[in-house]
This record gives sequence, structure tokens and C-alpha cells, in this order.
Amino acid sequence: MSVAEKLLKGPAEVPFDIMRVAYCVLVVRDLDASLHFYEELLGLRLIERDDEVAYLKGWEERQHHSLVLRVGPEAAVERIGFRVRSDADLDALAAWYEEHGGTVRSGDADLRGMHGRTLRVWDHLGTPLEYYTGMEQQPTVLQEYHRHRGAPIMRFDHVNLHSARAEEAIVHWQQLGFRCSEYISTDTQPERVTGAWFLRKPTVHDVALTAGRGPRLHHFAMWVAEAGGILRLCDQLGGAHWTHAIERGPGRHGVSNAFFVYLRDPDGHRIELYTSDYYTGDPDHQPLRWSVNDPRCRSFWGTRAPDSWYDESSLLLGPDGRTVPTQEATVDERDQKSEVLA
Amino acid sequence: MSVAEKLLKGPAEVPFDIMRVAYCVLVVRDLDASLHFYEELLGLRLIERDDEVAYLKGWEERQHHSLVLRVGPEAAVERIGFRVRSDADLDALAAWYEEHGGTVRSGDADLRGMHGRTLRVWDHLGTPLEYYTGMEQQPTVLQEYHRHRGAPIMRFDHVNLHSARAEEAIVHWQQLGFRCSEYISTDTQPERVTGAWFLRKPTVHDVALTAGRGPRLHHFAMWVAEAGGILRLCDQLGGAHWTHAIERGPGRHGVSNAFFVYLRDPDGHRIELYTSDYYTGDPDHQPLRWSVNDPRCRSFWGTRAPDSWYDESSLLLGPDGRTVPTQEATVDERDQKSEVLA
Amino acid sequence: MSVAEKLLKGPAEVPFDIMRVAYCVLVVRDLDASLHFYEELLGLRLIERDDEVAYLKGWEERQHHSLVLRVGPEAAVERIGFRVRSDADLDALAAWYEEHGGTVRSGDADLRGMHGRTLRVWDHLGTPLEYYTGMEQQPTVLQEYHRHRGAPIMRFDHVNLHSARAEEAIVHWQQLGFRCSEYISTDTQPERVTGAWFLRKPTVHDVALTAGRGPRLHHFAMWVAEAGGILRLCDQLGGAHWTHAIERGPGRHGVSNAFFVYLRDPDGHRIELYTSDYYTGDPDHQPLRWSVNDPRCRSFWGTRAPDSWYDESSLLLGPDGRTVPTQEATVDERDQKSEVLA
Amino acid sequence: MSVAEKLLKGPAEVPFDIMRVAYCVLVVRDLDASLHFYEELLGLRLIERDDEVAYLKGWEERQHHSLVLRVGPEAAVERIGFRVRSDADLDALAAWYEEHGGTVRSGDADLRGMHGRTLRVWDHLGTPLEYYTGMEQQPTVLQEYHRHRGAPIMRFDHVNLHSARAEEAIVHWQQLGFRCSEYISTDTQPERVTGAWFLRKPTVHDVALTAGRGPRLHHFAMWVAEAGGILRLCDQLGGAHWTHAIERGPGRHGVSNAFFVYLRDPDGHRIELYTSDYYTGDPDHQPLRWSVNDPRCRSFWGTRAPDSWYDESSLLLGPDGRTVPTQEATVDERDQKSEVLA
Repeated sequence: MSVAEKLLKGPAEVPFDIMRVAYCVLVVRDLDASLHFYEELLGLRLIERDDEVAYLKGWEERQHHSLVLRVGPEAAVERIGFRVRSDADLDALAAWYEEHGGTVRSGDADLRGMHGRTLRVWDHLGTPLEYYTGMEQQPTVLQEYHRHRGAPIMRFDHVNLHSARAEEAIVHWQQLGFRCSEYISTDTQPERVTGAWFLRKPTVHDVALTAGRGPRLHHFAMWVAEAGGILRLCDQLGGAHWTHAIERGPGRHGVSNAFFVYLRDPDGHRIELYTSDYYTGDPDHQPLRWSVNDPRCRSFWGTRAPDSWYDESSLLLGPDGRTVPTQEATVDERDQKSEVLA
Repeated sequence: MSVAEKLLKGPAEVPFDIMRVAYCVLVVRDLDASLHFYEELLGLRLIERDDEVAYLKGWEERQHHSLVLRVGPEAAVERIGFRVRSDADLDALAAWYEEHGGTVRSGDADLRGMHGRTLRVWDHLGTPLEYYTGMEQQPTVLQEYHRHRGAPIMRFDHVNLHSARAEEAIVHWQQLGFRCSEYISTDTQPERVTGAWFLRKPTVHDVALTAGRGPRLHHFAMWVAEAGGILRLCDQLGGAHWTHAIERGPGRHGVSNAFFVYLRDPDGHRIELYTSDYYTGDPDHQPLRWSVNDPRCRSFWGTRAPDSWYDESSLLLGPDGRTVPTQEATVDERDQKSEVLA
Repeated sequence: MSVAEKLLKGPAEVPFDIMRVAYCVLVVRDLDASLHFYEELLGLRLIERDDEVAYLKGWEERQHHSLVLRVGPEAAVERIGFRVRSDADLDALAAWYEEHGGTVRSGDADLRGMHGRTLRVWDHLGTPLEYYTGMEQQPTVLQEYHRHRGAPIMRFDHVNLHSARAEEAIVHWQQLGFRCSEYISTDTQPERVTGAWFLRKPTVHDVALTAGRGPRLHHFAMWVAEAGGILRLCDQLGGAHWTHAIERGPGRHGVSNAFFVYLRDPDGHRIELYTSDYYTGDPDHQPLRWSVNDPRCRSFWGTRAPDSWYDESSLLLGPDGRTVPTQEATVDERDQKSEVLA
Repeated sequence: MSVAEKLLKGPAEVPFDIMRVAYCVLVVRDLDASLHFYEELLGLRLIERDDEVAYLKGWEERQHHSLVLRVGPEAAVERIGFRVRSDADLDALAAWYEEHGGTVRSGDADLRGMHGRTLRVWDHLGTPLEYYTGMEQQPTVLQEYHRHRGAPIMRFDHVNLHSARAEEAIVHWQQLGFRCSEYISTDTQPERVTGAWFLRKPTVHDVALTAGRGPRLHHFAMWVAEAGGILRLCDQLGGAHWTHAIERGPGRHGVSNAFFVYLRDPDGHRIELYTSDYYTGDPDHQPLRWSVNDPRCRSFWGTRAPDSWYDESSLLLGPDGRTVPTQEATVDERDQKSEVLA
């Protein structure tokens, strides 16, 4: 069965309930510089910080954090957090990953504001994950409109991972119980899937897997209330002489129908501000296929992405605290030039 | 335990999985007039129609319909549809309603575009419901932007029911497994809950119960992509000399943070166009309380609702095909004047 | 010739060049309270202040001020400023007003930031005016997007005056060389004009004259870049518990096609935030007529204005520094009830 | 005196009153294809057409036309129309151009919907111009919102001309009485002006002169009511598989603060949809200078323009009906690479 056929067949039945992706922890080199970007310019709310680590969240969120910044010598992604329903899910996930070649560490949460146990995992692809069951609740600031600045960044939405062997990664996440909403594939025989958008919560995605030197984090994305909020942020970045932080957009993806802008933080980590999602919760919701040769697939409005958007991504931290080595992708999927490399 | 305490305690555990509210069937007196309103002016997509019945849906939706209009002698609400996961859920729901005083009819779907069995229910409050497991899939027209007209109405979002004995209705829906996102209550002792917003899908609501002569349907709501789309529709209604169809808004509710406009269709059925939802899927997501005396509760921008918005609602059809008799509410909850009547 | 016929005939030829309305000076009782409203909440830029007077301007403006607030014992309008091209215009205007029953005072500018001579006038209707030829230039802050707060209030746009004898006032302003863009009139015989929108700069208006107890200032208006900016400000006012300051809207006028919101400042002065103007500079641009009975005239979306919007206005200061006595209007022109009173 | 100093000194005094740029006449090869683009996709209103020529206008406009399309063998610009106040202005302009090396033809208007005489001019730089005094009035369709499609294109705004010897062209237009709102210049000694924005109506511009192979028309621009309308049009072009027509944007220019998108019509003519203007009518309004090396000058959000945007423009028709020969520019002014060529 081809990977595309597997995607159409639907997610695997699994004995645990992953509810959604909920946060990521980034290693940054200068915490003040990062907070200037995320808090002052983008308008995320700072919940707490010290010299080493800062916890931020979006306007509507009530969890203690959805973005954690930790000081380190080299920019990297420390972990990506997923909420599960209960401790039993943590145990079932530990067993599942052990069976699927992952590295597993179970124990008490080490981030602030988190309750009870968590499960740290590095899957066999090298992705640093954390599963958790609950977090300290903070008041929502959604309606404190007079105190907002930056963009109306509401909540953590998804992560996008660059995978050297994208099809292998795609099958892996499907086996983990994720449903595919959209995918890109070649018009060749055999058909090669170059990207897939996977969900647990009923939006377009929690995790996207796309072809590229990997494993790396291409971006994490926060959901913004309105396209106008993204335009306004671009104006504010221009006003503040931070034009250089705008890498791509604003624009519209064909895939996912996202209205987007991609920014690079002071360490080069890429954040997508994202709006225009749709509901995917019906069990018979079928994946949409895009041809890699459709010019509207990546850019519904035709603007070419800069090469950096295809080539640059954030390194991941392995279980030894060192960055995970990367490999070149087997498919190069970009606007106006797509080729199967292997 | 007071009703407010019950809401804070969380939904009942139930042996079925109601996924979301998905459609309603309205009785209208003149199908062409109704289609002029919903299809031509509002821009819903017509999937099929004959002389008696018409099936419409929003731009992003893939289900065969989310609004069904059936010709009849008197405007009324025939049924409100909820999706469940499987046939086993239909059976479990039939048992539950029989235990809780509902009238139950199980059988093959009688609406077009629907698969297999459905369960018709009239709960003991008089609400006509239909539970179903799947529908014929239609292509999404989300990205056919050049063919759209009216407002960017994406999908069915929720219904709001007027209940004479609101607290009883609120407890009933909580027992059915719905979680409360927000509620309004008096500052009196004992505290009286005058409205509650209940969800199954992780948005602010699938069903709201509010105090008013009932049982009646106050409104059904479709989700719109952006506030600007609502403004544009108001302009279009003005341009088409349909200003009289705009009953309230555009404006912002404090409750639910909805940016809204309320329209009345040619039969007086009320439709809310609604945007600015938030995510409620975390199991520890706590209900927000609003005081009935907070001027921002109903109108975050202060504009008074017209009396019609509090007083008028659509009658419901009972199992005998006749409209369900209504009773006066025990609490009158409106801007600037709220009182406990009984 | 009826007043409507005069409006259609076009403005009088006059020996001076009034360029535009440019500022107003309001008497307020508590300068800190007023600045909290105009600077903190609305986002106007404060240029300078002392204990007695404050000078503010919009984001794009380069003139020293477009709103001046002066402390006094009673809320009132001290003057409305109009720019003329040259000193010769001041002299010609002085002569004109002396001929037309006005009270004229010529002299050096007494407001800060203004150059040279100005001409203070109280026309025979009681309106306090100031004509001037230039102002100190300030840097525009248009592109300092990261420093903005409140609404994108760009510039002073117009004033709206309540006139007891509206037709007399309308003829007066036309004689002063103002062109009419739109007017409202009764369907009676003889036709009575109840409001007229007059311009010098090529927008919909610099001055509107409307029927109402007068002479009073109904409102002054600042131009906002986008409708979304007005919605955002309403949210901010709600967030800051200033919902009570929102008197009417947001909404759309049929007349002028304005997307508007009307706010009341801490002294009750009414400010309109206004967007969606159109170009009126062609010499053959004809006035549009609205029937006072057209429900779309005042409210293109149908929402009724509260009575306060028709009944309340700011008193004007006369040449003796006392408020000008007012008279009841001869026509009552409001939504859903319009009558000729005299 | 350097060109920059001349710009700061203000426009020449001239014995005629050019009121604004008002239309252009384009030669297109396939009128149906062009109308599909301008009328069906963009939403301009078609006033009249035959097999040879079509007349269109924006939503708010009342003049008979602001865009005229004429069939011809080769895409080109036939003329650019400017409104003057009176016939006396036509005579004074004829004299002025004869003195300044232009080719002048006076006579009755040959376009439909125009009154009386017009003055055709080819200035010494090769630009085909037409001065006129009035046009047949059409009803505005501004408030027929329910009939609109495409973008809210309100009115003709400006033209942008590519000039081989930009400084010469800039001085020429200033001598014609145009005021400069903004200009771009090199940081070299001597300073070279590479672009200037000139106005007669009190907006940012009627005519811009920019360095490039010329004389050619870089683009004409229509004013759009809101940024959201530009985003919506891009979505519609994507939906209609016209993504290839979007050349640059949407984005924000530093110069002029324009929120823009540039489209190419089926003949390659470039149209800018433009919003976010500001008022420039005060006589002491000073030009803003931008350094050609400021990355925010052309792109406030940092997105690079494609080379086609700098290199391609529409040819002009000379008095003999043949395209005017072009010369390479003496300065190459583009994002991230700017050089003085001569």
C-alpha cells in the first residue's frame, strides 16, 4: 500500500488519547533578546521568568505556558509538548514508543506550572517530545483588549517538522493515531508523498511532516484571530525596524487554506502566525490531496517563498542534550522546482 | 448543590459520544423567499432542492447539509441534528432518553444525503432532536473564492434554546454529557443561573440554554471567518434594501467573546453570524461566570439589544407535528433590567 | 428658490479660499480625565500640555494640533478652526462676516504652535470659528506602528453642527463657498432640508448642518484608516470598562457612506470615528438627496440610534465667553419619526 | 540647485489648474480577455463597450470612465487623462507645452462620455497626455454592495511613469505645478533623486516618476477601500486559477505608506490596487525623503520585489500612433541593489 493510500485509509487505532500539541521549549542564546521579540513585539504574555527560562502564552490560553524559552549555548528545540487525557495514556505511550524504537523517560514534570508526571520521548526519527496530563491554570486575557500589544496571538496551534525521509515520518505519525487532513504528493509513478498535515484536535493540524533536511523543526505556529492582525503586526515590525524578521508573507497557502506570515526570531527559530483554519472533527473527514506541481499548493497567491524558507530549520536536542544529526531529504519540494532526489 | 456548582463540577460521564451539533431543519412558509435570503443574500450553498425541501451548507463544509428548509403552513423548528460516533451511540442514547422522559423514534434517515439509521428524540423539555452517524460527502467550496457571494459563512456552529425553566434545562444538558464554557447568574441568594453555554466539540458551544418563554429556538448560528465578512454582509443587506433583516449588531458579546450579527429570515427565524471563538478542549477548562448585572455580559460595546431579541423565538415541533406549547420564563434576563420572576 | 434647489445650484463664488476644517478647541472640566480618554484610550498623540491646556493630533497629521482641550468650569466648544490659504483670505473673510452679521476679532494667534495672525469669528448663528494660515509642523508618526495604541485615528475630518433653523444655517454655509455633497429633505410640499453635508477639501464634508436644538456642536469627527480599527477600539473600550463611552455604532450611515462609531468623552462631547469617505473634488460633482423617510438614510444597517444621539450636543462659547443660548429646532429628524415642528 | 532642493522648494506657480489625474486609455489585444480580467475578476463597472473599445469605472466614481480599453495590434498606453478646471486652462496648457517642447493637439473630445474640447499633449519626454474639462455623469454604485464583485475598487488614483532620466522628468513635472509628497534619493554626493511622488489633488500622488527604462508606464493605480478587500481579491484570483496575475504583494510600501498589490493584466499592463493614503492639501506640507538604501523604502515588510517589477513596463504611444522608443535608465534603484549607472 502506498503512503497516500495509507493516509486515505485513516489513522491507526491506538490505546491512548493524545489530545493536542500544546507547547514547545526552545533553546535561545539571549533570553532578553528573545523576550523583546516574543513579548514586546509579538505580544505574547509573559507568565514568569528568571535568568534561565521564560514561560509565555497566547491571549486566550489558560494553561501556564505554550512557549518556553531556555538559555543555552546553541539555538535548538528542546521538546514539543502534547497533552494526553490521563496518566494511563502516559503509560500506554511509553509502551508504544518502546515498541517503536523510541527513547523514553518517565518522571515528574520539570517545567514550572505543570502537574504530576510527564513522559519525555525521543522517537526513532529523533524528535524530542513530552506528553503531559495537565497544567496550572492562568486567567485568560482574551478580553483585556486595552492591554494587548503586537498581534492577536490566541493560542499554540501546530508544529511543522522537516523530515529527511518524509514518507517514513508520515507513516510513523499516522501509526501514532494522527489523522491526515491534507497532503502533497508527486505526479510520478510511484507517487511520493512530500508532506502531510496531521491532527488530533479537530483543526487542520497539530503536526505537519514535510520533506527537508531533517530531523529539524521547520516552524511552530500560533493561531491569530484575524488576517488584519497579521497585517498590523507586519506594520509594527516595520515601524520598529524589525523588517528583517519577516521571512515570508503575509500570504495564503493552498494547503490548509492558511493565511500566514513566517517570522524568524533572534536565534533563527521560525514562528508562523496563522489564521483561517477549518473544522476536521467528523470521523469521515477525508484528506485533500495537492499535487506538488500545483502552483497554488504552497502559495495560493503566487508569491515565491525565499530559499531560506525551504532550507533553514531549527535543530533538535537529543536525549544526550546534543543536537540530533541531520540528513539530506530524499525529495526536494519547493515552488517552481520539485524533484525526487532519492 | 446549586446549578452553578454543578456546572463547575463538570459534565456527567455518559455511555455515548455526541460529537457536535451539525444542522437544523426549519419549517418555512415560502421556500423561494427563504432561498433568496439564505442562498442569494447570505451566500450559503444550495446542494439540492425540490418544491418541498431545500438542503444548504456553508463554504467549508463537506457534509451534505447543515441547514434544511421544509415548506409548511407555520414557521417552526422541526429538528436539530447532532452527530454521534457510531450506531452504538444511537442505541445508548435511546436508552438514556427513555430513562429521562424523552420520546424516542429510531429508524432510517428520512432526510436526503444521510446514511443509515438516525434517532429522533423529543426530550422531556420539548426539544426536537435527531442523532445521526454520517452523511454523504460533498466537495468543500472553501477555496472557490471567486464563486462566493454574501458572507464567508463557513459552517454550522451552535443553537441557542429559550427555556422557561432555564436551570432545569441546563442541568438536563449537563447530564447528557455537555461541558459548560460560560454561564450567567444572578447576584442574588440563592444564585440563579440564567444562561449556560455547553459544548461537545472544543469550541465555546454546541448548545446554549437561556432563560425565556420556552421551549423555543432563540437562534441557530453559523461560523464566519472574519468580522469583516459580517460588516460586508450588512452592507450588502443594506444595498439590497434588506436592512429590516438586521435585528441586532454587529457587536461583541462579553459572553463567548462572539463578534456577532443577528438576522431574521423571512419567517422570523433568527440566525446568528458568529466569529471569534476560542478553544475549549482541555479537560480542565473551567467555566467562566458572568453576573447578569455586568453591562458587558451581553454587550461588550454597550449597545442595547432591541426587545424583540429577548422576546421573540421560533416555536418547536413536537412528536405529533404540532408546535410545542410554551411557558413564560421564571427569570427575565436582559440588558439593564433583569429580574427573577419566580 | 427652495433650499434644495440652492444646494443643487452649487456654492457661491467667494473672494477667499477656505481650505479645510482643521481643529477644534473644547472646554473640559478635568484635563487628566480627558487626556486619559483621548490619549490613553483613543490613542491621539499628545504634543504638549500644561495644567490648563493640552494639544493633540492624529497619527498622520503634521500640524501642531487638531484637538485642543482647555480646562474650564463648564463643558463647551470654544472654537472650530479652518485653514485658509493666506493672510489676504483672513482680511476678505473679516469683511464678509461683518457684512453677514458676524462678530469678528483679528489678531495674533493665541494657541500654541500657530503662526502669525488668525481671525476669530462668531457668525450670526452663534458658531465660534477661527481662521488661520499655518501651523508649526510636527513629524508624522504614521509609520511608528509599534508605538501606536487605541484606534488608527489619522486626522481631523469634520464637524457637525446642530441648528435650530437648519435651512437658514445651510444657506449661510453655502454662501460662504461650501459645496454640498449630500442632503436630507422631507417628502412634504414645500420640501424642507433637514441636513446638509458641506465641503471645501475634496471629501464628503468639512461641516455638516443638521436640524436640532442649536446652535450646538453635535460632534467632531476624526478619520480612521479602516473599519477594523473601529471594531478594535470598541473591544479596547470594553476591556477597559469604558463601554459606557460608546453611544452609537459601530455602523454604517447611508448618508456619506460613513462607517462610524460615536463616543462620548468624559464631559459628554461627542467624537465620531469615521472611515469610508469618497472623493468629491470634481467641480461638477452633484449633491445626493436622501429622503428623511428612507430608513437607510441614517442607518444603512437598520440599528436605531439612541435618543441621546438626537437630543444631546455640546454648547458653544460666544464672544463674551459665555455659552450661546439655544433654541428648539423647527424640524425633528430622527429614525422612524420625523416631523416638521414649525 | 540640486533636484532634491528643488523638490523641497515646492511646485512652480503656473497659470492653469490641473485638478487631478482621472483616467488612462490602454491598447489591448483582446478586448474580451481584458474585460474578463477588469470587469469579471477585478469588479470594475462596465459603462459601455463595442467591438473596439470599452469604458469602465470604479464603484464610487460618477465620471463616465476612468479606464478605457481599446483594441490594437500591440499592448501600449494611448493616453493618460487629467482634469482641468476650465477651457482657459486648456489654452494655457497648450501654450505652456509649446514652450516646453511638447507636441500639442487641441480639439473636440474623441472618447465617448466626454464633453467639449480636450487637449492632447505629448510632452518632450514622450508621455501621451490628455487634458479635459468635464465628463458625462453616471450614478455612483458605491452603495450597491449586493451587486459588487471583485475588489472594492473605488476610483482612479495615480499613474507611475518609468523615466530613463528620472531627474529631468521630475523637474519637468514640478515645473508643471505638481507638489512633491515623497522622494527617494541616493546617499551619494551629489545626491541623485531616483523617484518622486507628485500630486495635484490632496493625496499622496497623481503622478510618480521613477527611474527605469523609459519612457514607459510602470503602472496605473486604483484606490481600494480597505486592505481586506485586497486580500479578498487575491483569494478570488487564486480560486479562479489566476494566481499568475499577482506579481507583487500584498504588502506595504514605506514610500507613500501604500498597502498594495500589483497585478498584470492579460497584456502585461500593470495595475496597482492601493489603499492607505494620507492628506497632503496643506500648502506647507513638506516632502518626505527616503534613502534608496533604506530597506523599508520600497518594502516596509521586507519582501523582495521580483525583478519583473523593476524591469517591465508598458510602452507609450507617440503622436504618430507608434510606440515611443525607450532608453536605459541612468540609475538602477531596486531592493538590495541600487546603483548609479550614469
